[in-house]
Amino acid sequence: MTKLWQTKKLNKKIELFTVGNDYLLDKKLLKYDCKASIAHSKMLKKIKILTEEEQKKLEKELNNIIELAQKGKFEIKLQDEDCHTAIENYLIKKLKDLGKKIHTCRSRNDQVVAAMKLYEKDEVGKVKKLVNGLVNSLKKLVKKNIAMPGYTHMQKAMPSSLKLWAGSFIESLEDDLILLNNASQIIDKNPLGTGAGYGLPIKVDKEITKQELNFKENYKNSLYVQNSRGKHEAIILNALVNVMSTLNKLVSDLILFSMQEFNFFALPEEFTTGSSIMPQKKNPDVLELVRAKYSIVLGYEFQLKNLISNLPSGYNRDLQLTKEPLMKGIETTKDCLEIMTLVVSKLKVNKENCKKAMTKELYATEKVYELVKKGKSFREAYKEVKKKV
Amino acid sequence: MTKLWQTKKLNKKIELFTVGNDYLLDKKLLKYDCKASIAHSKMLKKIKILTEEEQKKLEKELNNIIELAQKGKFEIKLQDEDCHTAIENYLIKKLKDLGKKIHTCRSRNDQVVAAMKLYEKDEVGKVKKLVNGLVNSLKKLVKKNIAMPGYTHMQKAMPSSLKLWAGSFIESLEDDLILLNNASQIIDKNPLGTGAGYGLPIKVDKEITKQELNFKENYKNSLYVQNSRGKHEAIILNALVNVMSTLNKLVSDLILFSMQEFNFFALPEEFTTGSSIMPQKKNPDVLELVRAKYSIVLGYEFQLKNLISNLPSGYNRDLQLTKEPLMKGIETTKDCLEIMTLVVSKLKVNKENCKKAMTKELYATEKVYELVKKGKSFREAYKEVKKKV
Amino acid sequence: MTKLWQTKKLNKKIELFTVGNDYLLDKKLLKYDCKASIAHSKMLKKIKILTEEEQKKLEKELNNIIELAQKGKFEIKLQDEDCHTAIENYLIKKLKDLGKKIHTCRSRNDQVVAAMKLYEKDEVGKVKKLVNGLVNSLKKLVKKNIAMPGYTHMQKAMPSSLKLWAGSFIESLEDDLILLNNASQIIDKNPLGTGAGYGLPIKVDKEITKQELNFKENYKNSLYVQNSRGKHEAIILNALVNVMSTLNKLVSDLILFSMQEFNFFALPEEFTTGSSIMPQKKNPDVLELVRAKYSIVLGYEFQLKNLISNLPSGYNRDLQLTKEPLMKGIETTKDCLEIMTLVVSKLKVNKENCKKAMTKELYATEKVYELVKKGKSFREAYKEVKKKV
Amino acid sequence: MTKLWQTKKLNKKIELFTVGNDYLLDKKLLKYDCKASIAHSKMLKKIKILTEEEQKKLEKELNNIIELAQKGKFEIKLQDEDCHTAIENYLIKKLKDLGKKIHTCRSRNDQVVAAMKLYEKDEVGKVKKLVNGLVNSLKKLVKKNIAMPGYTHMQKAMPSSLKLWAGSFIESLEDDLILLNNASQIIDKNPLGTGAGYGLPIKVDKEITKQELNFKENYKNSLYVQNSRGKHEAIILNALVNVMSTLNKLVSDLILFSMQEFNFFALPEEFTTGSSIMPQKKNPDVLELVRAKYSIVLGYEFQLKNLISNLPSGYNRDLQLTKEPLMKGIETTKDCLEIMTLVVSKLKVNKENCKKAMTKELYATEKVYELVKKGKSFREAYKEVKKKV
Repeated sequence: MTKLWQTKKLNKKIELFTVGNDYLLDKKLLKYDCKASIAHSKMLKKIKILTEEEQKKLEKELNNIIELAQKGKFEIKLQDEDCHTAIENYLIKKLKDLGKKIHTCRSRNDQVVAAMKLYEKDEVGKVKKLVNGLVNSLKKLVKKNIAMPGYTHMQKAMPSSLKLWAGSFIESLEDDLILLNNASQIIDKNPLGTGAGYGLPIKVDKEITKQELNFKENYKNSLYVQNSRGKHEAIILNALVNVMSTLNKLVSDLILFSMQEFNFFALPEEFTTGSSIMPQKKNPDVLELVRAKYSIVLGYEFQLKNLISNLPSGYNRDLQLTKEPLMKGIETTKDCLEIMTLVVSKLKVNKENCKKAMTKELYATEKVYELVKKGKSFREAYKEVKKKV
Repeated sequence: MTKLWQTKKLNKKIELFTVGNDYLLDKKLLKYDCKASIAHSKMLKKIKILTEEEQKKLEKELNNIIELAQKGKFEIKLQDEDCHTAIENYLIKKLKDLGKKIHTCRSRNDQVVAAMKLYEKDEVGKVKKLVNGLVNSLKKLVKKNIAMPGYTHMQKAMPSSLKLWAGSFIESLEDDLILLNNASQIIDKNPLGTGAGYGLPIKVDKEITKQELNFKENYKNSLYVQNSRGKHEAIILNALVNVMSTLNKLVSDLILFSMQEFNFFALPEEFTTGSSIMPQKKNPDVLELVRAKYSIVLGYEFQLKNLISNLPSGYNRDLQLTKEPLMKGIETTKDCLEIMTLVVSKLKVNKENCKKAMTKELYATEKVYELVKKGKSFREAYKEVKKKV
Repeated sequence: MTKLWQTKKLNKKIELFTVGNDYLLDKKLLKYDCKASIAHSKMLKKIKILTEEEQKKLEKELNNIIELAQKGKFEIKLQDEDCHTAIENYLIKKLKDLGKKIHTCRSRNDQVVAAMKLYEKDEVGKVKKLVNGLVNSLKKLVKKNIAMPGYTHMQKAMPSSLKLWAGSFIESLEDDLILLNNASQIIDKNPLGTGAGYGLPIKVDKEITKQELNFKENYKNSLYVQNSRGKHEAIILNALVNVMSTLNKLVSDLILFSMQEFNFFALPEEFTTGSSIMPQKKNPDVLELVRAKYSIVLGYEFQLKNLISNLPSGYNRDLQLTKEPLMKGIETTKDCLEIMTLVVSKLKVNKENCKKAMTKELYATEKVYELVKKGKSFREAYKEVKKKV
Repeated sequence: MTKLWQTKKLNKKIELFTVGNDYLLDKKLLKYDCKASIAHSKMLKKIKILTEEEQKKLEKELNNIIELAQKGKFEIKLQDEDCHTAIENYLIKKLKDLGKKIHTCRSRNDQVVAAMKLYEKDEVGKVKKLVNGLVNSLKKLVKKNIAMPGYTHMQKAMPSSLKLWAGSFIESLEDDLILLNNASQIIDKNPLGTGAGYGLPIKVDKEITKQELNFKENYKNSLYVQNSRGKHEAIILNALVNVMSTLNKLVSDLILFSMQEFNFFALPEEFTTGSSIMPQKKNPDVLELVRAKYSIVLGYEFQLKNLISNLPSGYNRDLQLTKEPLMKGIETTKDCLEIMTLVVSKLKVNKENCKKAMTKELYATEKVYELVKKGKSFREAYKEVKKKV
């Protein structure tokens, strides 16, 4: 079956190259494209391009696709190129001439953006839920009354506690939630009705699709729908990178404090992996991988932010490559959040070892303040204690 | 004069290396450190570490420093290391033992964060003003009634207009303003009273400093004050990178459409530079530099996001190096916004050339919709027009 | 079947997370691990751990695996974790106790590095061949005698030619070849015999594996075998990024000069794609994707270079994640080289349009030099011509 | 004094923006531009543009500038824009009409590249010397006979030694030296005589400048002189990033192993810094800053690699911004190498603590091999020991 924009046969190598792995990635978009197409069909009914009956037929088939997709039975073939063509081909096969009407008053450009935005809103929502789950796991740790050394410059500094330590990640995740919320607010604009970026030579009703798809507002400017591609996805990735950064610090601490020399924390044995040569090893691979995945997701953000640079206005095919970094960033972040919620919930804290580590240098500052309370100026008190240390 | 934390003399080479260019960068922080110190002194008065008279003396000298700094007469010497020590040394010189009391109930760690946050709030405010200035310049362009070709894939696509083109940058800047606002909201937390990250062995009153310095809220967790360093600055840089990305697209278009082959736009001659060998050249250097500066600011963002990776909790000296990328990112973005506001306000639009460029292929989609309005299904109409093109 | 290092059952979620997609990526490594294992078995024979007969049996089964793999019939199951375990499991199944001997005198750590290095040497070789192929395509262009304008600052500058233009990419690719050669030289070290990074408590003979596997030299330091992971891969990616950078400039020019306003170049129609809404469009998607893939590969390089930062010596599981960015970088670069060789070989150059574009401002510098030849100082001649332009 | 390419007065704000900090950065280039100009004058003599006497006068004044620059007495004023104009202005002031001849047969484009390449060759040479210095410091450590634990996954793995540990950095630096050599080889091409990228309308003799300036070869393609800008600088930065990566791992280990919980290493007290609040602190700030500077230099590399993306052929002003990231990358790397040579030479190794850390789990693999030597298959031996651990 030929592509919708196609007359002459495309060179086979060029086809393979340009399709890339869109036909695989787009599995995640099927549902969203169908939903957007249903909303679009309602709009077409409103402006009298479709009759009520026609709209119903289309809606039914689109719902069928959603169902098939959920069961893994709707295939996007390489020659379909992407989910959008696969869906249209299916509609034409099922509904003949009626299927050929669905693309009226839209371009693949606004269609793709609509599916992406619905996908993004859903996924950011899932990430937020997982962040809240991890916060809950951390809150259980916070309740334990365990003293620990506090470090600065990776040197013993002042007394700290499990509560303070775990609490720092909660506040960090709260900041990340704000970023996630902001990201989903900014991208929450209806792109339908803007065509290829330059509007449509026919009057459409954007309010209908906006309401149907629960978008916060319509894009004001049709060209910006395309110019915001990559930019909006990078805003989401920035929020994800912040989440990953919180996890990166959490696991950096856990790996350090699980070393034999500290032994403040321990993973359950069934969470650790062994060595092919050293029989004694219990390695925190799971934590090391989370640590490294920060850099992986950061790399995805950089791909997007570099990719959009020095490009003129309007849709450029480069933007198609914004899909994979975003999707991989989302999947990676979700995986890491899930696994860290499990890890935190099962983490063993060795209270005794923490206590033993509370050596006297940690209390030097307290001594300074004892002198301050007795009336010494801070600097004099500091010097006096320093001499004795 | 020795540093405050110092007893034994530091090796000269190590000193030079560790001070780096902090003593230069910190000129920007002087004012903010003084303001934070005044607020801190009021807190010390409240908790009875300082008498009312002592506080007044300290406040007076701190205001003196602000005044001296504004006149460029307050020097931070290399051996001072940074503005914080320079200020304390000055106070001790002027007020003797009273000066030695100012550092009570704080650490350099919370002190630095306080000055940085005040600086950041001010500067993000300035960036927002400049963004609004550029929006106003663009709004003047939007009012001109000029038709232009719209491009996708850098190929002529559909009819566009100066209004649509310029409007896309306005909506992009509106998104950027949301990001700037969000960034300044997230970072707007009072760090004073959290010491080196592990609180203080004496009761302090954070509400006073919060109110005096107009912070939205107090940090909940003292350790997070330090763990959010770099993270908060990267959140600001992300917003700046988005602004720069809007400018990058704007100048990419301007450079392209100012080529002789288009000649839609022209810079005033006094905005262009010449060549040392080619007498005819009028080059848009100013636009090319703005284009490139997107990558520069993006590099600063990635310096920060990389720098904080794989570090354990608590202050690590690495974080000192978050200052320069942030400050340079802010300065660069402000410069570019200012210059682009000037450029846009003086931009010449060659209406005639734009009109000439409105060739017939741009209207192919209109022809499709004429057929659609006559009752053809979209796909049939598309095929019919395609055959004729 | 359990993993080799395993006694207690690993938590299912942790297993899925730690295995990641290694079991998929490792398809590319199967052949190389078998080859390295054959070399290793010969070494074991030499030091009398294996008899000649035992070695032959192992070699035979390892060659069987290579054959099965080539036919796509050797499966690496998720529960195998990676190709190394899959191979050992196969050997144990086939050869019972003999299979359990193959891992003597090695660790998975040196084993993985050996397979990676063999893979890398092969793949860099393929990339070099493809670069040479593109150079040959460009050399055909160079032979055409076609004048073109030369641009600086994207403004007409001086007369240029197809020969000069195409030749610049040839010299760029020659630099890239030097980088590729250097990369493959640097990484060409035998890691076998270094165990987990701390040598082996038994005498091994590294010369045998070195010769069998055609490595240039042995690693001098066993710990550096692990410390160079990521670093060596980033050196390869840096070379690939340079190749992609040459392609990025080539396609940036092609896209620009294929705009209707220039029309110097044209792609054959079967290389262009259409629009779902605009029937007239012939878009250079293939070029735009190559342009964008520069940023993608650059992102992979950044992932590696960030991932290895702030890690202590010795193997850390983070390093497992260096595989995917490298492999994807290699695949992408090969794809782009292949497609660009095809594009260049079929590129249409519109001599007439190039000629028409040779307008008189391009000759201003020539006029200056006519005056110089007549005895004017350069600066005076320049000023005189500038006045007239 | 006006710029050389200038007729109409440039808008003041535009001037400030376009000049940027070139007039400051160019201090480093003064010497090299003079040397290149002397070589160029000899070429002009050869092709009879200058008489022997004229050439001598120019050479004398150019040598004067070098001398003045060395004493810090040659100023580049903001209105000069850069060192190239400052030098030409000086020559014209001193030699009147003769000064106006020096720019014959060159463009600022090839002139800038010539000065940059001479600077780069010199600086890479200095970096190589510093790397060798650090290797020598490490070699002294290697000679000490001290046992240490070896870690994988930041868990105790097998016995290691100071020799093995320090040796790993030596081999890493040897790889870095290869990269530095390769970088200086690749960039070692004479750009003079290629004008603005499109040659010159007069016959020049590139062999003379090549020999005078000791370049390995001439560029083959004049356009590539400009297209290689940024690319060549990024190749150098990649080599520097590799050096910094070696240092990053070295200091990551030093910081970790200097924690109180290990105490394998200690810095001399005059190398450590204190805390403004905690009198007991001796912090390894110097090491933490080296650690962080890896990310800073990496950010510079990515500025360059991003900046050159999606740009068409020929000089674009964007390339001017490649200077600062390169220069800062070089300065930072040199500083870090110098300081680490000092640190390594003064490092205290606590033999007793290292020995105490050699706990029994480190010897589990040895036990496996004792069984292997007695005839057990490796996997059986491994299982047996694992059961006992």
